[in-house]
Order: sequence, then structure tokens, then C-alpha cells
Amino acid sequence: MTRTVIESKTKTVIIGFDEPFCVIGERINPTGRKKLAAELEAGNFDTVIRDALEQVACGATVLDVNSGAVFTNKMAEDPRYADNNFVEPPLMKALIEIIQQTVDVPLCIDSSVPGALEAGLMACEGRPLLNSVTGEEERLELVLPLVKKYNVPVVAISNDDTGISQDPDVRFAVAKKIVQRAADFGIPAHDIVVDPLVMPVGAMGTAGQQVFALVRRLREELGVNTTCGASNISFGLPQRHGINAAFLPMAIGAGMTSAIMNPVRQVEMEAIRAANFLMNHDPNGGEWIRFAKVIEAVEGGMSFADASSAQTSAASGRRGGRRSRG
Amino acid sequence: MTRTVIESKTKTVIIGFDEPFCVIGERINPTGRKKLAAELEAGNFDTVIRDALEQVACGATVLDVNSGAVFTNKMAEDPRYADNNFVEPPLMKALIEIIQQTVDVPLCIDSSVPGALEAGLMACEGRPLLNSVTGEEERLELVLPLVKKYNVPVVAISNDDTGISQDPDVRFAVAKKIVQRAADFGIPAHDIVVDPLVMPVGAMGTAGQQVFALVRRLREELGVNTTCGASNISFGLPQRHGINAAFLPMAIGAGMTSAIMNPVRQVEMEAIRAANFLMNHDPNGGEWIRFAKVIEAVEGGMSFADASSAQTSAASGRRGGRRSRG
Repeated sequence: MTRTVIESKTKTVIIGFDEPFCVIGERINPTGRKKLAAELEAGNFDTVIRDALEQVACGATVLDVNSGAVFTNKMAEDPRYADNNFVEPPLMKALIEIIQQTVDVPLCIDSSVPGALEAGLMACEGRPLLNSVTGEEERLELVLPLVKKYNVPVVAISNDDTGISQDPDVRFAVAKKIVQRAADFGIPAHDIVVDPLVMPVGAMGTAGQQVFALVRRLREELGVNTTCGASNISFGLPQRHGINAAFLPMAIGAGMTSAIMNPVRQVEMEAIRAANFLMNHDPNGGEWIRFAKVIEAVEGGMSFADASSAQTSAASGRRGGRRSRG
Repeated sequence: MTRTVIESKTKTVIIGFDEPFCVIGERINPTGRKKLAAELEAGNFDTVIRDALEQVACGATVLDVNSGAVFTNKMAEDPRYADNNFVEPPLMKALIEIIQQTVDVPLCIDSSVPGALEAGLMACEGRPLLNSVTGEEERLELVLPLVKKYNVPVVAISNDDTGISQDPDVRFAVAKKIVQRAADFGIPAHDIVVDPLVMPVGAMGTAGQQVFALVRRLREELGVNTTCGASNISFGLPQRHGINAAFLPMAIGAGMTSAIMNPVRQVEMEAIRAANFLMNHDPNGGEWIRFAKVIEAVEGGMSFADASSAQTSAASGRRGGRRSRG
């Protein structure tokens, strides 16, 4: 029974075949969020704090923390800011510190810069998830030693030096190579969470079936947990939340155990909570029944984030506690 | 490749492993619809006509026709009306005739009364689906000869003289017995559409996983198509459409090929259309993109039935054609 253990200061989250689907909140990521990047450049963490609170209230049990910001103004003044190796490590440290002061959930340290990964590992309390290693030789050699040194689990993305293959058998082979290389470092398969890479179904009609088949193989043949950037499946399509909301239960039915996604979307979270129930990972439907109250509040005119926060506060008995803003 | 062929006067629908999910509209059923039963007793088919049009517009490709009405007033005047064997055969004939004048889709003749099944078979143009046989001895002996005589496919419900087993292995064994008994009559497995019976997940936490596992076994070991009364999964739960909308894609991912359900519900139909796309049964997403326009119209304030009718009319170029009322 594969179990990937992730921890914050006091909380443990298990990604596992017999666990509810693990929702890793993706919002704290300045890539493509110009306003957030500008705020971070100005040392303003208000959006980060709000995103941390909202995502946890909405059901994320792990938060991804990506430090990939471009500091445009500082770059104009000081050329060192053009280098991510200069910008990201202190930013990652600052992000993790502020998030840990805000919420008590395990974190997923997300950067393409090894120095930022290590800065995050040093700043994190508990046992974070590292995001990510790939099958690229340089990346394997840089990241796997960190995984070993800090004894943390790692997301393994199934592309390599030849890029992302459209052939799922090649992507499986890359994942297998990463698992084997990790084993050479003494890293067990249960600490590898494979991302089989989700292609947009609008561009490749077999994209869904590829993922479902790959997840089954990764689980049965390599015994690993899996994750994905779920929203990629619907890239470029109209009404994409409807595609996501069918994709997630189908992926869960095929055995996928986590996703990096936006939890502040009712339709996707509703699909995941229903799928947990249908996988018998929600004893007596207790979580579903609580979530139904959130849906009712949304039907009554509340935002999903506010309704989720209110329900979370009510459940934990923290009346009058801190509430996120919609 | 299992293909169950159903036909109306001019249209063919195939239930199959490589086909879009077959939605069998369940609305034309006076059981539990007192108002409809009273209308039928008075010889008023307005609701039947509207239900036929709306269900087809919303995406049903087959319509279930159930004649299980109780004619309370007539019963008080004439005791023969207390007997379903008296009421149902002429009602089934009348229902089928009016529906065939209204829409051109294959029908599913649904009755517990063998005389009504045969009246329906005689009235139907094309090749209807018969609903249903069970593993009960009497039912096998009464229904399989009709299936053979009229050369039609049949829904096989996996209960028998001992009732409905909570053990999925027993339900599989009942399905296997029906397939074998049908073979004795010369009826091929591809003309049996097995309903593995869906239990409410609120009462039995394993209900979802039972269905997914049974569907895979029925497909792999018996080579049969499958169907179910989909909404039963969420019986007794709050926000049940959210459960249904996750259950259907998961069942489709497991290999289920049809369901008897209410197609006049956006959330379930959206889940099915997305699942078809993700199963690579919607080339280039053409159906999804058309459906997205229906969702947009609903977001603009239209009812799902009206938006679907408008889109269907536009697609078929029948401007100003007959529209269903919401």
C-alpha cells in the first residue's frame, strides 16, 4: 500500500491509494500572475496570505509554493535580478515563512532553480513535497541529492532531455527511469509522486485515455502515487471547468491520487469530493454532507471561497475567527 | 467489439465499447408521477409529447417507455383496471404510437407485464430495446422467448428469485446465468445489456466501487454492454446531482456504455458529454463545442431544455420548427 507522507509543523497528509484525493493548491505562483509578481517585488504578501487561507478553506490539504517571479523594476536597477538563481532562493524562503505563519498545512516547494528548492527545504517545517525532478540528466543529478539529503518526497515529471513525448509508453519509460535512479540514491518508490503529463484533449483526442492508462500502469507496475496539472486537459476549450470536472473523477477512478490545481473553484472541488465518496474514501459521506452545506450557501449567493471559509470556521468552532475575503 | 444495435423507423443507435455513451431517457414513466398517470387515464398525451421532445433535444438517443400506470378512477368503476395485465398492453401500444409520431429515436419498451412488452414489440417500428429480463426463473421463461421471437436486444437486471444481492460476485453470477440462458435460446451476448444494479452510496460505502468493478468484469469476462439507473447512486443524499455528475464519468471510465436517466438535467449531461470527449468518442470535440453553446445560453438565463431545443433546431437547420416548452 503506497503512502507518501507529507508534513507541516503539526499536520500530516498522506497521498495514498486508500486515501482521499490530495488537492495541492496551485494559486501561490507568480508565473503568469503579473499583479502577484509586482506585489512580491514590492514586498507585499497580502495576496499570498489570502490565497493561502482561501485555498485551505476550499479544501486544499497541501499548498504549492512557486517562486518563479520576474522582478521587472529591480531588474532595471540591478542586472543580478535578471537571474532566477539570484531572485528565487530568498523569495522562496520569504514565501514559505509567511505561509507557515498563516496556515498549518504541508507545502510543496516548486521551482526550476535548485537553489530555491534548497532554500525552501531549509525554511520548511515538517516534511514538504519537492516539485520537481524530471528525467533530464542534469535535473536528476541536481535534485535527487536534495531529495536524499532532506529525506523528502518528490514530484517526478515524465519528460527528459528529448522533451515531452506524445507517446505514453515513452512517458512511462521516463517515469520508470526516474524511479530507478532515485533507488540508486536510496530513495524509495513511495517517495516519488509521478506526473504522467496531461495533454490538452482539444489538441489530442487520446489525451484522456492516455492519462487513465498511464496512471493504472504507474500504480500497478511501479507502485507510485501520481499527480498532474489537472486543468491542462481542457486547455483551449470552451466551458473548460466542465471538462475538468469530468476528468478528475475519471482520473481518480483510474487511480490518480493527487493533483496540483485551483481549489477555489466549486465545480472541480465538488467533482473531487463526490469521487472520494464514490471511491469509499469518505466514511458515511460526512465530508460530502458538510460540502453540501457549502453548495447551498453558494446557491444562496455567497462566493465559494466565503462559503467554504464559513463552513470551515463553523466546523472547527472558531466563531468570529479570521475569514478570507472573496 | 461488442455492439448492441437499436433502431427506430429510420435511425440506428449503437450501444458499444467504442461509441459515445448511450443516454436512455427515463421520463416517460407514470410510476411515481401521479399527474402523468392521471393524464394518461384521461387519454391526454401532452406531457408524453413534451417529454419525448425535450429528452431528445437534451441528448437522449433512446427513450424508455414505461406503461406502469395506475388508473384510479377507472378502477373504481371497473375492477378489471386493478390488473396491470389489463391496463398496460393497450397503454403501451398507445404510448409507442404517439411517441413514434413525435420523435424518430429508438425506444426501450419497459414493463413488468409480458403482455405489455409484446404489445410494445408489435407497435414498435425498427428494433427496440426490451426492458427487462431478470434472473428470476419465471421472468426468464416469459421474456427470453419474446427477445428471440422479435430479434431484439434486452436489458438484463442482475437480481434473481433470491432478490437483489449486496454481494457483487452474486450479481455477476446472476448476469452470467442470464447470458447463458439467453444463449440457450440462440440470443447472442451482444444483445444483452446488463444492469449490474447500483446501490445508494449513502447506504453502502462500497456501492461506487462495486459498480466500477462489476462493469469491468461484465465487459471483460462476458463481453456485454451495460446500463444502470444512474440516479440510484445518490438516493437519499443532499446535492445528489453532484454525486451523479461524478458517478457517470467514473462509470464511463470503467466501461459502462449506457444509462437510463433523466437527460433534462444539465449537470449530468455535461458530465457525460465531457466524458465522451475524454474517452475519445467525440472527434475534435465537435459535440462538446456545440454543447458549450447550450451552457452559455443557460448561463444567459434560458432553461436547459429550451437552450438544448434551440441548439438542436439551429444545428439541424429547422429554423422556426417545433420547439418544446420549458
